[in-house]
This record gives sequence, C-alpha cells and structure tokens, in this order.
Amino acid sequence: MAERTVFFVSDRTGVTAETLGHSLLTQFDAIRFKAVTVPFVDSVGKAARVARQIDGEADRTGCRPIVFTSFVHNAIRAPLLRSRGLVLDYFAEFLGALEEELGVRSSHTLGKTHGMLDTRSYNSRIDATHFAMDSDDGHGVIHYDQADLILTGVSRSGKTPTCLYLALQYGVFAANYPLTEDDMESDRLPAALNDHRQKLYGLTIAPGRLAQLRRERRPGGNYASAGQVRFELRSAEHIYRKYGIRYIDTTQRSIEEISSTILSETGIKRRANP
Amino acid sequence: MAERTVFFVSDRTGVTAETLGHSLLTQFDAIRFKAVTVPFVDSVGKAARVARQIDGEADRTGCRPIVFTSFVHNAIRAPLLRSRGLVLDYFAEFLGALEEELGVRSSHTLGKTHGMLDTRSYNSRIDATHFAMDSDDGHGVIHYDQADLILTGVSRSGKTPTCLYLALQYGVFAANYPLTEDDMESDRLPAALNDHRQKLYGLTIAPGRLAQLRRERRPGGNYASAGQVRFELRSAEHIYRKYGIRYIDTTQRSIEEISSTILSETGIKRRANP
Repeated sequence: MAERTVFFVSDRTGVTAETLGHSLLTQFDAIRFKAVTVPFVDSVGKAARVARQIDGEADRTGCRPIVFTSFVHNAIRAPLLRSRGLVLDYFAEFLGALEEELGVRSSHTLGKTHGMLDTRSYNSRIDATHFAMDSDDGHGVIHYDQADLILTGVSRSGKTPTCLYLALQYGVFAANYPLTEDDMESDRLPAALNDHRQKLYGLTIAPGRLAQLRRERRPGGNYASAGQVRFELRSAEHIYRKYGIRYIDTTQRSIEEISSTILSETGIKRRANP
Repeated sequence: MAERTVFFVSDRTGVTAETLGHSLLTQFDAIRFKAVTVPFVDSVGKAARVARQIDGEADRTGCRPIVFTSFVHNAIRAPLLRSRGLVLDYFAEFLGALEEELGVRSSHTLGKTHGMLDTRSYNSRIDATHFAMDSDDGHGVIHYDQADLILTGVSRSGKTPTCLYLALQYGVFAANYPLTEDDMESDRLPAALNDHRQKLYGLTIAPGRLAQLRRERRPGGNYASAGQVRFELRSAEHIYRKYGIRYIDTTQRSIEEISSTILSETGIKRRANP
C-alpha cells in the first residue's frame, strides 16, 4: 500500500491543524499516511525551509504531499503555497464568510497577534485537573460539594481517563469513585455517594473487553477472570438501575465520545473550551 | 455588545466542529459568542429539530446564527442547510479536494460508517494516562525506564497537567518529579533523575505568576511568598543550566503550547494522535 506524507504546519502549536487533518484522513481507510508535524513556524524563512522539505518528500515518494496549515499570520504561509504540496488551510477557507457575516474583520486578517492566554479558562482547566487527581479512585470525598460530576464503575472501566479529559478539555470538576466487591455484594450504593446521587454517572463495559484491559494490567489471578468480570459488571449495572443512575457503555467509545455524551446528557456547564 | 449564537452540530461528538469553530471565533475579539453544542445528531429528524432551534435563535436575537457542522453522514445535514443559519461545514469544504488528490472516495462520501475505535491508539492513551497518574509528583521512579519523558520543576509550575495532556492526546509516557528545597540547597540533581538525564525536561515560570498560583492553592505562609518563589525558581533554573537540561517558561503558554514545544524539541514519538 502506498504511503502518503502529510504535513501539519502552523505558526503556533499545530494542534488545530492536526485535529482537523486527522478527522479528514480517517475518512480514507485504504491509505496509509505518514504524519509530520512542524509547529512554531513563525517566520517566512522557516516556512521556506518547510516548503523545501515538502518538495523533498514529493521527490522522494513521487506523490504530492498533503499539507494542513493553520497560520495566525497569513504572510508566513506564502512559501508553502509555492511548494508542490496540496495546501488545505481552514482559516483561508472560512474566515472570509465569517467576516462578511459578522461585519468585522478578523484579527487574522488585520495581522494582529492576539493569542494571549485566556487566563480564566486556563486556570479552570488546571484547577479541574488537580481536582480530578485529588479525587481519583475514591479519594477526596470531602470535596464532593465542589464536584460537577462523580463517575462510578468497576476498576478499569474508564473512569480516570474520562475525568482527566473532562478536566483538561472543558474545565469540568469530575471525581471518580470505584465500586468495590463490598458494594456489589450488599447491592447498595456506597455511603459516600448517597448524598451526591444527582451528580453520579455510571460507566460500564463489555466483559470481554474489561477482562482484556485487566489482563494487560495484572495478568493471571481473579482480577481479570471471566467470572469475576461478569459478576462485577452485572452487579454494577444492577446498582445503577436500582438507584436510577444514568450510565454509558464505554466499550466501543473513545474518551472524547464518552465525555461528550456525559456533558450532553447531564447539561453540565463547561468552564473552558477545547 | 451584541451576542451572536453559534451552534456546533455533529452526528458524532462534535469535538471537531468545536475545535474548528473556536479557533476561528477567537479571531473576532470584538464579538461575544453564545455557544450551543449539539452532538450525536444521527437522524434527519434530530437534524430537523436542531434546524428549528437555529431558526428560533434567529427570531429571538434578530441575527443569523453561525453553525459549524461536521457530519460523517452527509444526508443528515440537509435540514440544517435549509435553516436560516450560516452553515460552515468542514467536511464538505475539504473532502472533495482530498478525494481528487488521493484518487479514492472517502468513507464519508460512500456513506460508510467506519468510526470503529482505533484500539491500539486508544490503549496507548489509556496506558499513558495511568503511567502519568502513577508517576506523578516523584512517584513511580522505578518505572522511569518506560518513560518517554520526565518533567521536572518546582511545585505548581505546570508539570502534572502537561504530563496528563501528553498522555491523553499523544499517548506519550511522561513522568514528573518535583524539585525540592533540598535539591535547591545542594544545587544538585536528585539522585533519582541522574540516571535518566536524557529524558529530562525542565519547566520554569515567572515568579509573580507562580506566587499567584500558589496563593490560590494555599493562601498565606512561606509557600506562596515572593522570596520563596524567587529562590526556588532561580535555583531550579540554575540546576537546569548546570546539568544541560532543556527547559521552557510556562508563564504565557497554554498546556497545548507547552506540550507541542516539548514534543517538537525532543522529537519524542507519539503513540496516538489527537
């Protein structure tokens, strides 16, 4: 299978160009892509060097490289447009329509550097991250009044990464509390969660997938056994239904999908934007 | 100041539409936007309801709403195109050019649902996240052989959120190790770090900003005092220079910028894409 080289070039981090580029490239299953990210291209000289690199790849592979760009400063982009890559620039594509609709020119067009950190949004994300760390795995119950959300579920069902993603991307204060075998045998919600039922959201996962995840963590033993995994998941789901806790199956879902679903279903307000 | 309503609509999570939209909207400082995210719009009926909501906002505000969309299934989008919003569709804009260049049709155009989780990439992100959690704040030194990167710096300089972001976005195994007053007074690298110098990267931050962050965490006392903060930062930077450790000032940088810079400077290979 032929490999196509893809460049992500930006005068900033390139994260936006990457996110957008990957979401397009995943639509082409049959092609293998080799990704090259070049962030902080903040001068025409640096852009000219990247343009030469693009042309080099065109020579080497015999294929036109695909180039996703996002430049705050338009002028820097010029050498790339003269390269032999296919340059896809979403600023160039959309800003015109937006300027017309809004009746003002963008700071991009005006050549202004704004890009100053949005401190409030930044602080929210940091604070939420520390909150998630401090309230991981049943710790920090005393701070549940501050929580926007408390995730619960069995070990390795996806609680920790989801909490951290919600914190880092959206500034949401998410704690997580594991359901233990005691909870399952008593078929009761842990006391620590009882006062915060309206903040609870459950995770579940297919038994086969959970067994696999647990084996990777701790091979052998009861923890990853088919019987144990099935018992825990059945008990957890029973508790969710008994106490009217909404829950989501994480098996075929990315962390982004789990997080979006929870935010969308609960209506929790974001303190920051991705 | 007038407020303009912006919709992010998708048959999946909407993260792509939001990323695109926010990066464009930040170019218009003078306008206040009210954001409405509607993910998982996976039927024409749901899309028709969103279209009515868009028209309702047009009536209520007397302004045309801006609508960022990213639909894997094109057909579902139709009702939005008949709404009174300005619809900016990322896929519609770029997929044609990519299909032409690559000489194949996209799964989007073919109406295929792929969207299956990329399990390897997913597992990398989860494993890296657990690694970051287990090696936070100087823990897990025994696992440093597995680390791609070890961040160091004084308390509250941004180590933890950066490690978690690198894990969640890129599947990079990043540990972090705090520099303590003992290290500073001895002006020596902690023993735990000595064997892994090539994996080290330092963080620093402006004294005023650090004092502010520490005051928010623990008001009063020596921890957040101007003298203490200046002493710690001066000592940390001295250690970085003495041992040839690259470092970055996090003061005016977002977590994304810090992470991109480190990846770009070290050439650490990503195990997953954002």
